[in-house]
Formats: sequence, C-alpha cells, structure tokens
Amino acid sequence: MPTSPSTTEANQKDSKLVCVFCASRDSPDQAYNEAANSLGRELAKAGYGLVYGGGSCGLMGRVARSVHENNGDVLGITPHALTSIEGATGIGRTLLVDSMHDRKSMMNDYAMAFIALPGGFGTLEELLEITTWSMLSIHSKPVIVLNTNGYYNALRDLTKNAVKAGFIHGDNSEIIVYCDTPQEAVAAITKYSTPKNRYDLNWTSPQPM
Amino acid sequence: MPTSPSTTEANQKDSKLVCVFCASRDSPDQAYNEAANSLGRELAKAGYGLVYGGGSCGLMGRVARSVHENNGDVLGITPHALTSIEGATGIGRTLLVDSMHDRKSMMNDYAMAFIALPGGFGTLEELLEITTWSMLSIHSKPVIVLNTNGYYNALRDLTKNAVKAGFIHGDNSEIIVYCDTPQEAVAAITKYSTPKNRYDLNWTSPQPM
Ligand SMILES: [Mg+2]
Repeated sequence: MPTSPSTTEANQKDSKLVCVFCASRDSPDQAYNEAANSLGRELAKAGYGLVYGGGSCGLMGRVARSVHENNGDVLGITPHALTSIEGATGIGRTLLVDSMHDRKSMMNDYAMAFIALPGGFGTLEELLEITTWSMLSIHSKPVIVLNTNGYYNALRDLTKNAVKAGFIHGDNSEIIVYCDTPQEAVAAITKYSTPKNRYDLNWTSPQPM
Repeated sequence: MPTSPSTTEANQKDSKLVCVFCASRDSPDQAYNEAANSLGRELAKAGYGLVYGGGSCGLMGRVARSVHENNGDVLGITPHALTSIEGATGIGRTLLVDSMHDRKSMMNDYAMAFIALPGGFGTLEELLEITTWSMLSIHSKPVIVLNTNGYYNALRDLTKNAVKAGFIHGDNSEIIVYCDTPQEAVAAITKYSTPKNRYDLNWTSPQPM
C-alpha cells in the first residue's frame, strides 16, 4: 500500500538510507543475483536502510527483500507509469510519484550514499547522473560501484580515456569508487572522501536538478 | 543577450533542430576538436539547426560556432548557475533556465534527433538519459554517437556485456547508433529506425521526465 510520509516523519526514519541503482531483471549469471542478495544483507547488518526505485523484480527486488528480511528500512520511490513493468508490489514502504525526475530528486534527498550494481542503460544513467551531480557540487555523498565480475571495467576504461582526452579534470575521475565485493562496497560508505577539486557552483534555484 | 522565445515562435524556427551533447572543454587531441567543427558544418549544410546546452567553450562552443557560421539556427539552453563555468556568451539564441532538469526537458522538446560527441561524465549521462527515455517510449528520436577515435567503444562493450548479462533486452541495444565520421552521423539522422520492441508505457503525467 503506497504511503506518503511527511518530510519530518521521513527524515526521522531515513537518516541512514543508502540509494541502490541496479537492474530490474535477474541475470542468467547467478553471480549478479547473489551480489544483490548479499549487498542487501550487508547493508542491513551495518545498520543501513535502502532507498531505491521501488518494485520487486530482478536485482532491485533482491536487494530490497534482502534488506527487509534483515530488518533494514526499505523505501521504494516509483513513478505511476512504471508500476506495470517493474511491479508495484511493496517491499517495505512505497512512495508513488508522477515523474522520473521526481523519483530521482527524492532518492537524492533521502540517500546518504549511492551504490550501483550491474544493470542496463537506466542503471548506468542513474550512476552517471549522481556522479555528474557530485561533480557540480549538487551533493557530496559517496558514489560507489559494486563491480561484480568486472562488469563496470568498461566504464572505468571510458573514464580513463576521458581524462586522457582532457574531458574529465582534476580528481573528478575519483568520484566513483569501484569495489569488488558487497562487503567492500558497504565499508566504502564510511571510508569515502569526496574529491576536493570539484566545481564550486551556487545553485540558487530551489530545484537544481 | 538571453532571449525567451514564445513556444509558437520557437516551434516555427526549430522544426529541424538537432541536439548535440559533448564536452565543454577542448581536447589536447585535435581529432576531437576537429570532429566538433566538422559536425557543426555538416549539420548546417544538411539544413539542420542546433539545440544544445549553451555556452561557447570547448567542443560545445565549436559545434555552435560552426553551425552559426554556416548559417544554421543555434539555440542554447543554460541554467543560470552554469553560466560562470560554461560561458554565457551567446552564440545564436540563448535561453536561460533555472535547473538542469528544465534544460534537459527543453532540449528534448526542441530536438528532432540527438548526437553525442566525446565528453566527460555529463556528456555520457546526457547520452544515457536520452537512450533510457527512448527505451521507455518517452521519445522515438534518433540517438547517434559520433565515435571519433573509437572514444565510445567502451560504452559499446559495456552494452554488449549488459545484453549478455540479461540487463538489456530485445533490440534496445540498438537504440544508440555509432558513427565514425561527422558525415555519417548527420546521414544517420534520416536513416535511423527506432527499435520496435521498446517498452510501451503510458506516460499520463504531463512531466514524464
Ligand atoms: Mg539523468
């Protein structure tokens, strides 16, 4: 049953929510599915809750169920239009919003850190958006990749090329931290240090995103 | 001088605007800089105008100047907060908006096609966002990568991995068309055929993005 927690109520409960981006499908390769199960367990064991795009399918559903089963708080934020394909079945609390933009903006508000597991175009876009927002000083939160099977090595290569080509400067290439295991990914949350030489911008608009 | 064209006025002029994503810095590798100059020229020669993130710096500035010098229409859409780093110097018409989201939403409204040149995290995010929006049936417009120096080969590899891992399905992996030269990229606009098996979603909200 979708609920609309007031901001105060939400802030009280959500002080340690981690936002996870990942596929809304399972993989034929069990390594990815197991990484999702394991990440959820490790997050809950370390006292973190989950804020995510909602739904019960695929890797997203696995992370959510695993956090929930290990007594972690779960908040799913889903646009109405996506409930037909991602499954609206609530795991923990579900918040229905109108747009993709509202979803992302709220996930950013609630999260204290971001972890990306393997996924498709949507997952990659979410990861890069939150990386760009860090580069632009919209947030200073940890951005962590769970690099199961070296899935994101190609992104690392692309980043190296971009530095060489002069398109990513200073320590911005270090915004994303790559971890091999769920344990390392969760430990990276507290170890993370935000790169120092990002743009220092003044977002006077109430809605920078 | 920033202008705010009325929607009617804009629609009349902007029927053939192509949205270009790329770096707001020049590269030490002239191949990238020349690809930007050349793309602008080829777009204008083929009768296209440009809608872009605004500014006069780097590859973005090159594309805009090149379209403008070849008598193409140029519309830049820039958030206030970014004018300090990307340069607000108008090439053609400039539209100042409040947020990154307004910028992207308007670029999508004005564009009939999207071309990504090499760039950093921001460029990659824009490319993947527009790819995801196509996957979700928010638009059906051409999404083209100008793959100078094989810059985006790593993204192609990541996409192949994602298909193999089961995270990108059907013909969604064909949403992005890779081209080696500016001429091919411009020709790809009319040759493009939208993949048939994307999600068929109902975006009843006025603001799906
Ligand atoms: Mg985005």
